[in-house]
Amino acid sequence: MNPTMEIFSQGEEIVTGQTVDTNAAWLSQQVAQMGFTVTRHTAVGDKLDDLVGLLREISARADCCICTGGLGPTSDDLTAEAVAEAFGLPLEFDNVAFEQIKLFFARRNRIMPELNRKQALFPKGSERIDNAWGTAPGFSLQAGRCWFAFVPGVPMEMQHLFLETIKAGLQSRFSLKPGKLISIKTIGIGESDIQERISAVDIPAQVQLGFRAGADEVQTKLWFPNGYPETAMATLITTVASQLGDYVFAIDGLTEPTGDLAAVVDKLMTAGKQTLAVIETASQGLLTAKCIGAQWLLRTMYEQSLGRLGDKLAVEINADDLMETAQALAAAMQKSSAADFILVQLYAGDNTALHDKDKSIVLYNALLTGAEFHQSVHSVAGPIKRKQNQAALLALDLLRRCLQHK
Amino acid sequence: MNPTMEIFSQGEEIVTGQTVDTNAAWLSQQVAQMGFTVTRHTAVGDKLDDLVGLLREISARADCCICTGGLGPTSDDLTAEAVAEAFGLPLEFDNVAFEQIKLFFARRNRIMPELNRKQALFPKGSERIDNAWGTAPGFSLQAGRCWFAFVPGVPMEMQHLFLETIKAGLQSRFSLKPGKLISIKTIGIGESDIQERISAVDIPAQVQLGFRAGADEVQTKLWFPNGYPETAMATLITTVASQLGDYVFAIDGLTEPTGDLAAVVDKLMTAGKQTLAVIETASQGLLTAKCIGAQWLLRTMYEQSLGRLGDKLAVEINADDLMETAQALAAAMQKSSAADFILVQLYAGDNTALHDKDKSIVLYNALLTGAEFHQSVHSVAGPIKRKQNQAALLALDLLRRCLQHK
Repeated sequence: MNPTMEIFSQGEEIVTGQTVDTNAAWLSQQVAQMGFTVTRHTAVGDKLDDLVGLLREISARADCCICTGGLGPTSDDLTAEAVAEAFGLPLEFDNVAFEQIKLFFARRNRIMPELNRKQALFPKGSERIDNAWGTAPGFSLQAGRCWFAFVPGVPMEMQHLFLETIKAGLQSRFSLKPGKLISIKTIGIGESDIQERISAVDIPAQVQLGFRAGADEVQTKLWFPNGYPETAMATLITTVASQLGDYVFAIDGLTEPTGDLAAVVDKLMTAGKQTLAVIETASQGLLTAKCIGAQWLLRTMYEQSLGRLGDKLAVEINADDLMETAQALAAAMQKSSAADFILVQLYAGDNTALHDKDKSIVLYNALLTGAEFHQSVHSVAGPIKRKQNQAALLALDLLRRCLQHK
Repeated sequence: MNPTMEIFSQGEEIVTGQTVDTNAAWLSQQVAQMGFTVTRHTAVGDKLDDLVGLLREISARADCCICTGGLGPTSDDLTAEAVAEAFGLPLEFDNVAFEQIKLFFARRNRIMPELNRKQALFPKGSERIDNAWGTAPGFSLQAGRCWFAFVPGVPMEMQHLFLETIKAGLQSRFSLKPGKLISIKTIGIGESDIQERISAVDIPAQVQLGFRAGADEVQTKLWFPNGYPETAMATLITTVASQLGDYVFAIDGLTEPTGDLAAVVDKLMTAGKQTLAVIETASQGLLTAKCIGAQWLLRTMYEQSLGRLGDKLAVEINADDLMETAQALAAAMQKSSAADFILVQLYAGDNTALHDKDKSIVLYNALLTGAEFHQSVHSVAGPIKRKQNQAALLALDLLRRCLQHK
């Protein structure tokens, strides 16, 4: 049996819905991968009685609990006080923490407000978790059955403290038997098509198969229990992936995380030292924005009107053959651009079809690499946001396919 | 005292962190506006004992509870069973629900799988909540102190059922005294500067003041209790907003929601029937993508190299006076574009400065409206994602200021 973990989030902004609690999901993914079974998430506001009651409940119910929020300097930050009351531990002033807090302000040329003094108070017997990322140190302690770690609710600070301190603490305290989660990430193929292709594969009962369809990709997930033989695992992953062919743009869980399609393309383009120029239409800047920060993206154009786009590049538009037109535009762009590759995205159907959720558009992508043309054609339906996002992804995916299969 | 509300989310995908629970935040915002006090969010997986225990806890603790998830057809969808066990209510087959489920499949030319029959079983004494948006009907019932409503976890279905059925049910069951939340939304000014400007305003003790800083905007929030006099409210809002001057791009809570900066610009551009062409550099397509779907955006260009941008538009680049260069580029773009307005964004500092989180860049925005130039200059620091996002927003904000103050 895996040890159980609960996630506890404190803050009025969470219970009132002003903030979506992304910390709980992030922490759960982390600890599930380590071999914990996450049994419950709870969020409460800043009422002392609620906090005290909940801490006592959890201390009797879970092996471990990570709590976020309530460590700030103001009167509604009650976590340390609640822990003290729940478990009958007096608050003690920690000089080291106090020096750290003062230093945080001094480094920013600011005077520490008197309020922040409170952040150096910890329940007796707790261990301080130093925070180089903000003013609030965290702390951990054992209470009843449960080992608690308390960290700030600011996601960036929480993530650093988890990865740099808490994770090691958990590994030394618990005997963990992590399984392995593999995500095969695809683009351009739907969940039901994936299921059909995979149905041919014999998946052992102890391996859990799952799917996760997002706006940008579909993930086929294989969860292997602890101790599953490495070679059998590798064979099964390869078999499933090969059923999905080159819809697969990345496999997560083998080594480091691969990121989304744009991250995969970024890695390939950077490795190949190639540069790109883009003409986008349906995706209206979204393709460019998905490559944000990419050094290899030299120039992009968006033009609402296909006619004006043709005028600008002195290309005759042939509405009956948009692929030919896309190729002509790519050739024209190549002359005026320093980029190695030219990617052109056109679509059939006018601006009205793009906006009408009941109409589909047909996308024509042409990629010019030196003297060679690559192309793809897709039909995309749904609300404009979906169409534009798919248009950006599918053009980028044509580039990915060429780069991966060269 | 407001009646208390808890939100209960069921699903392994939530406790394992595969899905961020956005339902809890959405529902909390809705019911807080109606006059409930949300006291707790809880998420558990699909273990029957956990569900039963939690339902009993809540029935003794809260006046009302909305539960999402666990109404699907598969064996891990246990909500109805858990309710039956928790409160000793046998499950009863509902013929009307069964017909609805069959119809859902018939309309899609599919045969109803036998599994879905289960979705027509409800705990005795519960009231069905018809679902025109999916296969799973919801249900509601009183148990102990608490009125429960159970709805599917698919956000779109949940939102429809809440707005179309549950909301009215809550209003008829509870005597609600909603307060009023006003959000004054600003861009280009930080939270501490806002606090300093507002410190001059005398805010009555019964009005709660709060701040919320996001990547795209800072919100100054005023929460007025039920029965607060309308004129005093209007005066206070105007006073606070005037302290923030034209950093304010929208005020939420007065009539319908205003949306983000791009939505505000979209409304103004559409109302004025103007069109726009854009040259963006630092924001690399993000500005264009923020206006996604906008009919008034005719053309945009991104060019990584300022030299190549100058060549393309036959404009001499003056690195010592980027505002002059931006204006010259706008004038050149105006000649070759059909757009009414031309917005040009340049920045001082090279691509390396853009990528280095310890270096700042200076943004030069020029907007040409007919024969008139408008301009803004900003220094932006931080990681590239922040710099690029701010670059997109601040250029768009120059456009917003001109449109609002004409």
